[in-house]
This record gives sequence, C-alpha cells and structure tokens, in this order.
Amino acid sequence: MITATEKSIQIIEEGHITSPKGFTAGGVHCGLRKTKLDFGWLHSEIPAAAAGVYTLNSFQAAPLKVTKNSLEKSKKLQTIVVNSANANACTGKQGYSDALEMQKLTAEQMGVETDHVAVSSTGLIGVPLPMDKIRSGIGMLGKEADTSPENFEKAILTTDTVTKHLAAQVEIDGKMITIGGAAKGSGMIHPNMATMLSFITTDAAVEQKSLQSALKSATDNTFNMITVDGDCSTNDMVLVMANGMQKNKPLNESHPEWDKFFEAFQFVCQGLAKLIAKDGEGATKLIEVNVTGAPSEIAARQVAKAIISSNLVKTAIYGADPNWGRIVCAVGYSEQPIDADKVGISLGDIAVVKDGLPLDFDEGEGKLYLQNENVKLIVNLNIGEYEATAWGCDLTYDYVKINASYRT
Amino acid sequence: MITATEKSIQIIEEGHITSPKGFTAGGVHCGLRKTKLDFGWLHSEIPAAAAGVYTLNSFQAAPLKVTKNSLEKSKKLQTIVVNSANANACTGKQGYSDALEMQKLTAEQMGVETDHVAVSSTGLIGVPLPMDKIRSGIGMLGKEADTSPENFEKAILTTDTVTKHLAAQVEIDGKMITIGGAAKGSGMIHPNMATMLSFITTDAAVEQKSLQSALKSATDNTFNMITVDGDCSTNDMVLVMANGMQKNKPLNESHPEWDKFFEAFQFVCQGLAKLIAKDGEGATKLIEVNVTGAPSEIAARQVAKAIISSNLVKTAIYGADPNWGRIVCAVGYSEQPIDADKVGISLGDIAVVKDGLPLDFDEGEGKLYLQNENVKLIVNLNIGEYEATAWGCDLTYDYVKINASYRT
Repeated sequence: MITATEKSIQIIEEGHITSPKGFTAGGVHCGLRKTKLDFGWLHSEIPAAAAGVYTLNSFQAAPLKVTKNSLEKSKKLQTIVVNSANANACTGKQGYSDALEMQKLTAEQMGVETDHVAVSSTGLIGVPLPMDKIRSGIGMLGKEADTSPENFEKAILTTDTVTKHLAAQVEIDGKMITIGGAAKGSGMIHPNMATMLSFITTDAAVEQKSLQSALKSATDNTFNMITVDGDCSTNDMVLVMANGMQKNKPLNESHPEWDKFFEAFQFVCQGLAKLIAKDGEGATKLIEVNVTGAPSEIAARQVAKAIISSNLVKTAIYGADPNWGRIVCAVGYSEQPIDADKVGISLGDIAVVKDGLPLDFDEGEGKLYLQNENVKLIVNLNIGEYEATAWGCDLTYDYVKINASYRT
Repeated sequence: MITATEKSIQIIEEGHITSPKGFTAGGVHCGLRKTKLDFGWLHSEIPAAAAGVYTLNSFQAAPLKVTKNSLEKSKKLQTIVVNSANANACTGKQGYSDALEMQKLTAEQMGVETDHVAVSSTGLIGVPLPMDKIRSGIGMLGKEADTSPENFEKAILTTDTVTKHLAAQVEIDGKMITIGGAAKGSGMIHPNMATMLSFITTDAAVEQKSLQSALKSATDNTFNMITVDGDCSTNDMVLVMANGMQKNKPLNESHPEWDKFFEAFQFVCQGLAKLIAKDGEGATKLIEVNVTGAPSEIAARQVAKAIISSNLVKTAIYGADPNWGRIVCAVGYSEQPIDADKVGISLGDIAVVKDGLPLDFDEGEGKLYLQNENVKLIVNLNIGEYEATAWGCDLTYDYVKINASYRT
C-alpha cells in the first residue's frame, strides 16, 4: 500500500488529466446519447511516449485492435478520442473499418499523424457505430469552448454516477513532475456491457519501454485488483502518455529516482482504481481486502481476489454483518496453498479469527465498523512474506435492479 | 446430456434414497434447531461398498476429515449420520474429537463397525458442536416411528426451501437395479455458510474402486457443474453406498453393462444437482448452459461455468432480458482458446449470435422465452468436438435479502 505522505507524493487538489504540462482535453455532444456529452478528446502539444494495456477478453473490440496496432508501431500518441453509448464491439469487419476511419479523421482534424491517434469506445455492443455522428463529433474536436477536463471526464461515462479524476506531483531531477488521470467504469453496464477505461498523462520524460513496463506493473497492482462484478469487458483499456515537457533526464529503470516516479505513477493508478470500485453499480461501500503473509505474490493476489469477488462477502458487508465465516470460506476456495490453522482475520482493527479459530469479539462493534463507507478486511495467511490489496464494493438490491431491468 | 428415455433409465415416481433394497433412513429432532428435524440417519442392512468426494476448500470441516479417513481404510459404509444447524467447521481439535465421538457413538447405537460410519454436519461454522444434543440424537437413531426417507431429507436441510430426492432403475444382468439419492444445498447459506450434501444409494453390487471412479466422473459432470453463488463450502460432500443386495455380478469398468449402470448413476447425480441449482437462494429460475464445439472437455466446462457464474447473465435472466452481449462477454473472459468469429449463441431455440456477430431476432420473443422457469442457453464455440453442461439459477433481490440480513 502506498500512502501519499510516506513517498513525498503530493496530491493536487481537484487534479485532472490536464494538470500535467502540455495536455488539453474536452468533450462535446455529437448525438450518440440524448443530451449528455458523448465524445471526448485528450491531446498533447507534442507527440508523447505512450503505452497501453488491453482487456484479455477474447472478444476484443475493434477500437482496441486499431489502437494496439498503431501504438505497437509508433510507440507514441498525441491524441486520444473516446465515444460513449456504443462500444463498437461484435461489429465484425465493418466495426474495424469504422474504427480505422475514426482514427484517420481525428488525425486530419487535429493535424497529427494517424499512428499517433488512439480510438476508444464504450457502450452498447453489437450495434454498428453511427459514423455520421462520429464524423460530426470529430469535426468539433479541439474547439476552445468545449475544452475542459470536466467535459472529457463526462463524455466518457456510461452508467457511472460520478466523474473520476486525480493528479499528483513528485520531484524528479529537481523538477516537479505531474501525473494526471481520468477514468470511467462502474461494472459491466446496462444496457449491454461496458468498460473500464483509464487515461493517464504525465509531463515527465519517460523512455517508452520503461513506460510500458511501469504501466503493466502498476496495472497488475491496481486496475487488475478491482472487481465490481467479476465481469471483464471487451473494451477495457488503460493508456498512458508521457510528453516529457518538464525536460527531466528521460526516466528508465536505471534512473536513481525511478522508484519515486513509479510509486507516484502507481499512486495515480490506484486512486483511479479505487474511484471505479467505489462507484460500482449499486454500491454503497468501498471494500479493501489486504492479504499479508502469503507464500507468493500470485497467492496473495488470488486470495484477495477470491474474497473481494465473493457474493456472500459482498452481501454480508452490504448488510453490515460481521460474518467472518464467509471470508474464511473464500480464503479456503482460492485454490492457493493455505494452512488453515494459521489464518488470521480482522475487520478493520477488530480481530475476529486467529490461528484459523474464531475469537471472542463484540458483534455489535463489528456491525458498527461495517457500517462505514470504507471497509477494510485484513487477512494474514502467516505462511510467507508477500502481500496484495484488492478493492471492490458491496452487492446490493440496486445492483440487481440496475442489471435486471429490461433494456428500454 | 442424458435423458431418461434414451438410456432405458426408468424414473421411480416419488423415488427416495430408500428405494433401493436394504436401505432405511430417518430423522429426529434433537434440539439443534428450534422445532425442525435436525438429525438424520441412513442405514444399510449390510455393509456396503462406499465411495466419497469432498470439498477442495482448504478449511475442510472435522466430520469430512473423520469420514474420509475411515472410508479410505474400510472402503465400506453401513450408516451415515447427518446433523444440521452446526457445521463443526473451524472448531479445531475439539471439533475433530467431537466428530470422532459422533462416529463412535453411532456405531455403538447401530451395532456396526466404527469405520463403517460416516458423519456429516451442516450449518453454522466456528461454534463447537453441542455434544449433549448430538448424543441425545444418536440415542434416538433407528427407532421405527422416526424411520422414513422424508424425515431424513428434512433433517439435513438448512435454508433449502424443498427436500431433494430422486430414484431411478435400470436393468443389469437381467436384474432391476435401483439407484436413489437425497441432497441438500441452496447456496452458502445464512447465517454463516452451508453446504452441498448428497447421498446416493444403490442395491447393485459394484466393486469399490469402480464405484469411486464412477462417483468422481459423475461428480465432475454434475455436482461440480452447478453454481448458486460460486462459493464452495467447507463441508461439501457426496457419499455413495452400493450394498449389492440385488446380487448382480459385481460391476466394474469391464462389465458389459457398465456404461448402462454409469449412465443411470450419473442420471441420479444430475437430477439431484439440478434440484440444488433450482433451489438456489432467492432463485426463481433454473438456468442450463450447454456449451458445444469446444476444443477440449476442460474448455467446454470452463466456458459453461464462466457463463453460469456471471452475475450479469444471472441478473439479465432474472429480468428476462435477452441480453446476449453478457453471454458473449463471459465466453470471452473464460480464459479458454476461443475464436471470436465462430461463436454461435441461442436462447432456447432462438438463435441470437452467429459467427460472433448479432443476428436479427425478435427481442419480445426472447423476453418471453426467458420468462420460463427453466431457461437454456446454448453456446457453440465451433472449434472442436467437446461439450459440457452447467446448471445454476438467477440472481435476484431475494438473494441479496437472504444474505445481507444480519444474523439473529
């Protein structure tokens, strides 16, 4: 766990994806949604070193394929465009050529190289992208009146109830580096499915290869450790742009302050991941599961994920029921090597299980603790040195309501 | 999929676990629950070849350990006792010696060898077994007034809403062999966790080794293919007793009618599994997922399980929403080799996806179909010859209600 203070990371109050130098963002309404903003752009003054991670779902949506292909060649991005309301997934060859056209037209409109444009879509699947509306959206890109990070953050939402943004600073080579981020995601969303999208910017100079490996590591610890309902979408994507406008000596793993940069970078990823988990469909609480004493990093992650994904744990926390048996059970079926006689469990500061056996604790106190908006479950396996943290949310009537109601 | 007709399997109307020759069963109230029956027994006139499969949860409950140890030595069972209301799990050394005492006292009461007694518990975890009540229950075992399969089936329930029983017959060596079964299970149950318990009896003579392998195979295709909420308990167990009282030539894999026996045996397992899935906590529907065209058996199973476990699929079916995108998505994240351009999906007889692309179908018709009590989702991966079927239930407001309400 990183805390801002211990790593000299400074959080920017009301920080945005445009807090780093040289980035602008905006959003417009192009008619994909009734009245809400539905088309957003993020732009760097100069081409930025870029990296991406993508959903492992076999049904990868067309915009992901286009973006991935371009980025693998160019290693750089200058403009990212995102539409909501339509995921351009399960749309076959037409979908792929639509995504290519979206990329090409954006490049022309913004005066950048085609391979420096990423395209991203979220919303309904199986419906062809309404290209007339997309074209009209692209025609509006970059206008000053629509330029604001809030517009971008709103334009990328689907069933999210809040926008998600964050920025932090850290000193590298005596220069104040800024890292900003924006995200969307609220579960695999009504009416069909949606997406976890995250965009991260920094004005630090970072070598592309190192940026890619930093993104991969940070994603494993943050975005890949959240779950709302266990469903991984066709459109999930995280992109990062590092435009180097702070003119620091380009960062890589050998740079003496690499760790400092990475911690700050991961801090922003973690912050966005937690905002997504907390805004899970129907959620009333953010749940954090911290697993320590694991024999390996994989074991720590798997146990944390088993707990955070358990419907029974999630409903118990919704009901503020200090039902530790469900946590024990999830630990037990995580398919990791566990010594049942060594496991300890706490709800916040309240120890409820020690050496695999129940402790006498005040159930009323446990219930009171679980009524908090942020709930922490701590599991010590006591058989190793590794740890992992996962985030999720409670399972509520509203989750069922949101997802059971017929598409209209 | 086995259907009774095509394999000359005859279902016994109102069949029970005592339908096979030589078995008796009963249940009493010994004070573990307020008024409901809470202690059941199943008994064979003569020691029966026996086999068992057990939960893979690392926190295996004491009665499972005791039963497993005995059965591994004796290979036979004559009496099975089951208590509800207390799982004797997470109870440490005391729990283990309590389970041993429960076994020993039952053996004395029934006049059978200790190693021929299986003990089983389901209910609250982390609470020591109230041995005074267990002893009083054992003292009542075998009395004629309490002897009826219905009593046994009731005594093993927790939050189940119905008893689950089934029997079928098949001719082997010109003799009519009967296979009976009883089960409980309704999700990992309020107030702490509970259990899938199944007991199967037959009057066929079956070699113990073959019985064990038949149970393992049948379980993989049936009990291991159901999910209510994905939570696998500490106490799950399936036991089978074959007492040979029909005096057929002992069955093994080389017997010319082995396949016929196995199909009938699996038919009973499947029937019980479906009864459990249908009685899932809060469920209003039984969902069957049939995956065909898979490159391997494991792939077929994994894809079927990914779909049946998806909260989004489960809520969509609760809401009778023909939202095929969620099925596509679950197929995609099943971590199996999928060719996205080959997948076909049907809701019952209504084809909704072909070659990975949506078909034009009547949504009203789809909605109407999903309003049935039994819903079938068919997924053809079109890349192989293997298939698998999984069963589950919808995710409803009542599931949240049952599991979120505080223990009282």
